[in-house]
Amino acid sequence: MKKFFNLISSEEFGRFFDQFAPLESETIPLADGLDRFTADDIVAPEALPPFSRSTMDGFSVRARDTFGASETEPAFLEIVGEIPMGDSGKEISLTPGQTARIWTGGELADKSDSVVMFEYTNTLDESTIEVFRAVAPGENVIQTGEDYEKESVILPRGSRLRSQDLGVLAGMGISKIPVFQKPRVAIISTGDELVGVDEEVPPGKIRDINSTTLTTLVLEAGGIPKPIGIIHDDFDLMLDTCKRAIEEGADMILLSGGSSVGKRDFTLSVFRELDESKLLAHGVAIRPGKPTILGIKGNCALFGLPGHTGSAMVVFYLFVRPLLHRFLGHRNSTLTRLPVLTGEQIPSSIGREEYVRVRLKRSESSLLPIASPIYGKSGLLKPLVAADGLLVIERDSEGIDKGQQAEVLLFP
Amino acid sequence: MKKFFNLISSEEFGRFFDQFAPLESETIPLADGLDRFTADDIVAPEALPPFSRSTMDGFSVRARDTFGASETEPAFLEIVGEIPMGDSGKEISLTPGQTARIWTGGELADKSDSVVMFEYTNTLDESTIEVFRAVAPGENVIQTGEDYEKESVILPRGSRLRSQDLGVLAGMGISKIPVFQKPRVAIISTGDELVGVDEEVPPGKIRDINSTTLTTLVLEAGGIPKPIGIIHDDFDLMLDTCKRAIEEGADMILLSGGSSVGKRDFTLSVFRELDESKLLAHGVAIRPGKPTILGIKGNCALFGLPGHTGSAMVVFYLFVRPLLHRFLGHRNSTLTRLPVLTGEQIPSSIGREEYVRVRLKRSESSLLPIASPIYGKSGLLKPLVAADGLLVIERDSEGIDKGQQAEVLLFP
Repeated sequence: MKKFFNLISSEEFGRFFDQFAPLESETIPLADGLDRFTADDIVAPEALPPFSRSTMDGFSVRARDTFGASETEPAFLEIVGEIPMGDSGKEISLTPGQTARIWTGGELADKSDSVVMFEYTNTLDESTIEVFRAVAPGENVIQTGEDYEKESVILPRGSRLRSQDLGVLAGMGISKIPVFQKPRVAIISTGDELVGVDEEVPPGKIRDINSTTLTTLVLEAGGIPKPIGIIHDDFDLMLDTCKRAIEEGADMILLSGGSSVGKRDFTLSVFRELDESKLLAHGVAIRPGKPTILGIKGNCALFGLPGHTGSAMVVFYLFVRPLLHRFLGHRNSTLTRLPVLTGEQIPSSIGREEYVRVRLKRSESSLLPIASPIYGKSGLLKPLVAADGLLVIERDSEGIDKGQQAEVLLFP
Repeated sequence: MKKFFNLISSEEFGRFFDQFAPLESETIPLADGLDRFTADDIVAPEALPPFSRSTMDGFSVRARDTFGASETEPAFLEIVGEIPMGDSGKEISLTPGQTARIWTGGELADKSDSVVMFEYTNTLDESTIEVFRAVAPGENVIQTGEDYEKESVILPRGSRLRSQDLGVLAGMGISKIPVFQKPRVAIISTGDELVGVDEEVPPGKIRDINSTTLTTLVLEAGGIPKPIGIIHDDFDLMLDTCKRAIEEGADMILLSGGSSVGKRDFTLSVFRELDESKLLAHGVAIRPGKPTILGIKGNCALFGLPGHTGSAMVVFYLFVRPLLHRFLGHRNSTLTRLPVLTGEQIPSSIGREEYVRVRLKRSESSLLPIASPIYGKSGLLKPLVAADGLLVIERDSEGIDKGQQAEVLLFP
C-alpha cells in the first residue's frame, strides 16, 4: 500500500505558514472594525484626555490650599463659580483660597491641580465651603494625555480590534482605520456520493455536510467564504475548478475529501498540476487529521482536508484558522486553551498528537472544569455536536490519567 | 448626600431577568444560522446516515465468512463486483463466500454486515481475495441512523448553532431553521461634555467613546445595535428619545452616563416617567459598576450604565450581554471563565464583588495562565486596552494572594 510521503509534526506543519504573507491593507470605517486587525501602528493624533479632567463630583482646588485641613480644622475656600459640564474650566482662574464647583469629567479650573470630593466638604453659604480633608496635587484628576500622549502608539500593527480599542479610537477622532483585507476562501467538497442540501437523495448517496461546516468555520475565523459546492471525483474537473477559484482571487482553497492515498484521491495530483505550485506537506502526525495536504501557489494556500467532518474540523482549528489569521495580520492565533481536569483515563499512542472531543462540566471541588471524552466511531457526527472542545494529548504521551490536568482547545 | 436606594448583589440583579421573555421566532436560511439560537427542538426528518456506510476502503463482506481467518489460514472470498462511490450497494447481493469492493463512505452490499480493510487482504486474481483477519458483524460500518434516528431530537430549543451543528442540519436536508429574533438595542450617550467622533472638539468637551464601544459590544453579543448618538443632559429630550426608541421597536435601551445620583443624573427619573415602566434595580454591589439601573417597560429592558467606559463594559458583560442572550433564547449565558493563578496579591473589600482588569501570560510551571492586575485610575482607558479579561473577587473575600487560583472572565 502507498504511504504518506512525509508524516510531520504539527509544529513542522505550522512552520510552513512563514511562506505566506499577510494580505494587502484596506481602509474601513471605524464602525466596521470589530475583530479586524490593524495593518499599521495606530498613533494618537492628539492627547487623550485633551485636558485635565475631574474623576469626581466636587470642587476644583489648588491642593496647597487644603494642606492640613481636617474635620476639626477645616480649610475655608471661596466659591468663585461653577464649571458646567462641557464648558472649559479655563474660563475660571483660581487665586489662592478660591475654588470652583466641578462635575465628574469636567475640565479643572485654571491654576487648579486637584479636586476635593463633595463628601469632604460642607457648604456654609453661596460663596464659602469648608474642606475636611487635604488633597494631594493631581488627586481625583486624570491629567492631559495621561491615557495617551500625542503621537504615542495606541495599538501596534496586527492588533485585533475589540470594543474597547474601537472606543479609544473614537475618543481620538479616528473614524477610519487601516486593516488587513479579509482572505477569500474557495470551499470545495469532493465525492461522487455527495448531493446538495436541497436535493433529493438517491440510494447510495448522502448530503454534503462539509460545505456548510467549512463555510461557517471560515466566517467565524474572519474570512470571506466562497462555497463552490460539490465536485465529482474527476481530475480535470477538480483542476479546472481550482484554477478558476485562483483566477477569481481566492487566497485559499479548501478541498475536502480526496486527501488520502486511495484510488480516487486526486487532491494531491491536482495541487501538483497547478502552474508554479509547490507541495509543502502531505500527512501530519495528528489524530484525527492525518491525511492533510498543504500546497502554495503564489500566496494562495492549497489545503486538502480529510473528508470526515470531525477530522476536517480538527485540521481547520489547528492549521486553517491560524493561517487565515496570518493572512488577516494576526500575530499569534490559537483557540482559547482552557485548563481542565480529565474525567476519566484517556489512552493515546506515542508518536502522534491526539485531539479528543470532550464535554465540559463545572467541578464541585476545583476551579478547573472536568473534561469527559465523547467516544464514537470515526465518521460519526453526534459526538461533534455534543462536544465543547478538543482535549490535547501531546505527541510523547501515552495518555492522561483520570483527574490529571490537561488543556482543552475551546470551540468558538 | 442621596444614597443608592437599594444596593443588591449581582445574583439578585440577575434574577430580575426572569421578567423578560425571549423574542419571537423567525425562520432563516441555514447559511445565516451561525451563532443564532434554535427557537424549537430540531427534529431529524430522516435517519443519518441514510444507509449503512463503510468507514474504510476495503471489501464489503458477511462477517461469518471471515471467522477464523488468520495470516496462516486466510479465508478465500469471491469478488462479485465493486460498489462505485455514490451507487447503491444494494445492487449487489452477496451469497455465502462472496464479497464486493467498497470505498470509505460507500453503502454496504446487500446481505453484507461488515467491511474488511484492504490492509488485511491479498488479491489473488480478478475474482479472488485472501482475508487475513476476521471481522465482527458491524465492524468498520456506521449503521443506518447510528448518528440520528428519524424523528430524534438533534438540537433542543435554545441551542447555539455552531459550524458542526449547521453541518449536521445540512446533512439532514434542513435548509431553513427557526431561530429567535435578534434584539434591537437603542444606544444613547448622555452628557453636555460630549461631541461625536467626526466633530471638532471645543475646549472643555471630549469625544463620545461609549457609543462606539457599546455598539460593537452589542454586535458581538448577537444583537442589532441602533446607535442614537449623544443626548444632552435635558430631561425632556432624554424622555422623548427613549419614547421614540421604544416606538421604533427597541427591545433594550442602553443609556450611558447619568445613572449616578448627581444633580444632572436624569436616567432614573426618565425611566420612571415612561408609561407603565417599572424600576427593578438601582445600584449593584459590584466594583466597578455600582451605579447601574434596570427597568422594564413591556418586554423592553431599560439599562442605565455608568458613564466611564471601563465600568460600562463590566456592567455590559455581567448583565447586558446575558439579558441579550436571554432575548436570543440562550439557556445559559456567560463569558468564558478561565482558571488562572494570580501574579500578585490583589486586595478587595468584603461586601462587594470586584472585577479587576488583568493581563494573561502563560506560566512556565503550570497549565494555568498567570493573571496580573492592570492598575490605573478610574476612568483611564489604557488599562482596558491592555486587558485580556476581568478577574473575579467574590463578595465575601478580602482579596486574593499571589499564586492563588482564581477565575478570569475572558473578553471575547
